[in-house]
Amino acid sequence: MRVVGMNNALLVDLYELTMAQSYLVYKKEACATFDLFIRQLPRNRAYLVFCGLEDVLHYIKNLRFSKEDLSYLKSTGMFSQEFLTYLRRFRFRGDIWGMREGEIFFANEPVLRVTASILEAQIIESFLLNTVNLQTMIASKASRVVVAARERSVYDFSLRRTHGQDAGIKVARSSYIAGFSGTSCVLAGKLYGVPIVGTMAHSFVMSFKQEIDSFLAYAHVFPERTILLVDTYETEIGIANAIAVGLRLKERGYRLQGIRLDSPDIASLSRKARRALDRAGLKGVKIFASGNLDEFKIKELLDRGSCIDSFGVGTCMGTSEDAPSLDVIYKISEVKDGSQDFLPTMKLSKGKVTYPGRKQVYRILDTQGRFVKDILGLEKEKIKGEKLLIKMVKQGRVIYRNPSLDKIRAYAAGRLSRVPWQLQQVYVRRTYPVRISRSLKRLRATLERQIKKRQSFG
Amino acid sequence: MRVVGMNNALLVDLYELTMAQSYLVYKKEACATFDLFIRQLPRNRAYLVFCGLEDVLHYIKNLRFSKEDLSYLKSTGMFSQEFLTYLRRFRFRGDIWGMREGEIFFANEPVLRVTASILEAQIIESFLLNTVNLQTMIASKASRVVVAARERSVYDFSLRRTHGQDAGIKVARSSYIAGFSGTSCVLAGKLYGVPIVGTMAHSFVMSFKQEIDSFLAYAHVFPERTILLVDTYETEIGIANAIAVGLRLKERGYRLQGIRLDSPDIASLSRKARRALDRAGLKGVKIFASGNLDEFKIKELLDRGSCIDSFGVGTCMGTSEDAPSLDVIYKISEVKDGSQDFLPTMKLSKGKVTYPGRKQVYRILDTQGRFVKDILGLEKEKIKGEKLLIKMVKQGRVIYRNPSLDKIRAYAAGRLSRVPWQLQQVYVRRTYPVRISRSLKRLRATLERQIKKRQSFG
Repeated sequence: MRVVGMNNALLVDLYELTMAQSYLVYKKEACATFDLFIRQLPRNRAYLVFCGLEDVLHYIKNLRFSKEDLSYLKSTGMFSQEFLTYLRRFRFRGDIWGMREGEIFFANEPVLRVTASILEAQIIESFLLNTVNLQTMIASKASRVVVAARERSVYDFSLRRTHGQDAGIKVARSSYIAGFSGTSCVLAGKLYGVPIVGTMAHSFVMSFKQEIDSFLAYAHVFPERTILLVDTYETEIGIANAIAVGLRLKERGYRLQGIRLDSPDIASLSRKARRALDRAGLKGVKIFASGNLDEFKIKELLDRGSCIDSFGVGTCMGTSEDAPSLDVIYKISEVKDGSQDFLPTMKLSKGKVTYPGRKQVYRILDTQGRFVKDILGLEKEKIKGEKLLIKMVKQGRVIYRNPSLDKIRAYAAGRLSRVPWQLQQVYVRRTYPVRISRSLKRLRATLERQIKKRQSFG
Repeated sequence: MRVVGMNNALLVDLYELTMAQSYLVYKKEACATFDLFIRQLPRNRAYLVFCGLEDVLHYIKNLRFSKEDLSYLKSTGMFSQEFLTYLRRFRFRGDIWGMREGEIFFANEPVLRVTASILEAQIIESFLLNTVNLQTMIASKASRVVVAARERSVYDFSLRRTHGQDAGIKVARSSYIAGFSGTSCVLAGKLYGVPIVGTMAHSFVMSFKQEIDSFLAYAHVFPERTILLVDTYETEIGIANAIAVGLRLKERGYRLQGIRLDSPDIASLSRKARRALDRAGLKGVKIFASGNLDEFKIKELLDRGSCIDSFGVGTCMGTSEDAPSLDVIYKISEVKDGSQDFLPTMKLSKGKVTYPGRKQVYRILDTQGRFVKDILGLEKEKIKGEKLLIKMVKQGRVIYRNPSLDKIRAYAAGRLSRVPWQLQQVYVRRTYPVRISRSLKRLRATLERQIKKRQSFG
């Protein structure tokens, strides 16, 4: 089931519409290709996980300007009747090539390549950027957390700190794709089928006279899925109370699922808890840790020999705290006016030069299928390697069927396993090689000379 | 007009629902008060601007579990029929006190105070936290940008990097409340009436053979609202081209609105541009700056004597980059079982102690109406000062009418003007005094002793 959400045709930067109106006057027949890519990896990232494709395809398929949208636009007094009529009939009719959701990728590699009427390509820009930015940023951060947790399960507890409602469900989905085992966000369970999980809050414990009463009450109602939060008052007493409840459940033929530690000093408390549980014959009771965790803290906890089976990760992952945005951009790479051929184009501003032409990303594997390097080249080139961009939208029709969520998740895991281990580190020291093909280099050099010449006579 | 958005009853952490089911068995009649507050201001913040109230009230009014919600919950196998029936009939029937939207506040001060059946109070927690976190975080960050811009206008250009669609429109609204002059996000214009603004993109310039052609095309279509982006190729040539267009518009009786600089080195380019425009007789043409701006860079640009009339601010504001979450929490402060009186309660975990009892925030003003200090006290206390918490929801009925967006914005500006100037600085060095009343201190000390005693015999 998909999110239908708000009508999002107007989720667009105003300039996309004003530029489109100018194009309608001057370049009605013009087509262009735009690349959506990330110029630079943020700090602490050695790779990115592409996510957001499902929403992009859903948007492309359903993009319409409603009557209310049009009357709002009219009310601004900015738009011509001709343009409003154009919008009323608007459908996206272009082509889109993209990477598979869950793909591993690197700086300067297009994850989406749009070839369309320049008006259409422009109008979809803001939505595409917004969608890919959020979901790819989260999947990439979450992937690091998964790697740091070394096969232990990790859960998304970030709903209360994600940036709004949409982010709440998208973080749950994106982190699941990246290898999380579930989420606390019930709506993500309903909409996407992400497994939902939960424990209890301190307020629950506090609402009973005694801690043990709160434990017994919860265990009575959920004998098969109780995880007891043991640190509302004195953690060691809390662990003892949890053991008492665990033993009672055992007598009744149930198993206490786990206890949760949410305090500082989880490392030593977790070892104490493990010993106490084991001594009491509760070896199967798991220890969950939470509380401002991220990949760095998880690594540290595990390096210090903590006895933790699962991590609940919230704010740091759900906001991608150390890098709360990606340098994601959407740049024109070729234009075609009327019946001409496409002509490559590029941006020349200082430090912001782009690559011209219709491009493909080629991935070179070693004999064991591991990723060795990528080559950013032109589509027409003959380069041996996996082609990462595949055709997904043909003349406005979505021809690519996005796999089920669990298949996407498995794909992401498979791809991650082929990334050089040096890049799967919490502390990033290596860069994956992305080469520029000789033809693309040549094209860029030629074009640079031409543009400079043209401008200096401009 | 309000956002109707997705059905958000299930935008809830699973544990809220499992705890509620336990409460339904054990504490059907129990009531509680919860405070929603921010434990600590993040770095670089000397005050916060409360935002998100409108969505909270809208949610409270419309909160229902739909048939689909209930059948999803049933499908998980976690919930009893009794609880699902309870949810089917669910309405929020409690009381909520809150601060006005746009209010200035500080650490430990409740911005929302919920008194309700413990089930109801629990079920709304995730949504309240999510909503207040995003919108207050953004309004607080945006307020700093407004202060740094020293009366120059500031626009929200962050849509492409906000965390999803909901964040896109909420950032536009929150930053407008904090004093921004408009947004690029068209949907925020439609839904909230935030003024919308826009210029043009580099791709627009690049789609024409010559830069000047792109300028002329745009100016022809929008003779009254053209802002020319001058740095796609060589900025000084771009400025010259813009002047040519400005003069043509002038001849025709129009005024070029402005030029936009989006490159490094804005300070010196803006001075050059100003001189060139003035020499050409285009004194009225404004200079817009954009490109990874935040309050620190704006301060630096102005300190260096840049000639900038308006700033377009994107990612750094729209993600609150230096502090992409607030330490916002929702803590139980009193409980009542059945026909008993309310009993104050509090959390004792290390470093996470809370304040018990039903509280009010009292603001002490000097004779000129400036904020001197706040006192966090009990509701019953007689403390002279403005009471910041007012009753907004009475037995589930929203009795507070949130003012229009422009009135909220004016309220926020008025309140900000009363904040000591030492706190209205880009570099934060001072803390606003929030005192704890003597009665509250006493209550807390007594309660701490009681709880420790109770637990050690537990």
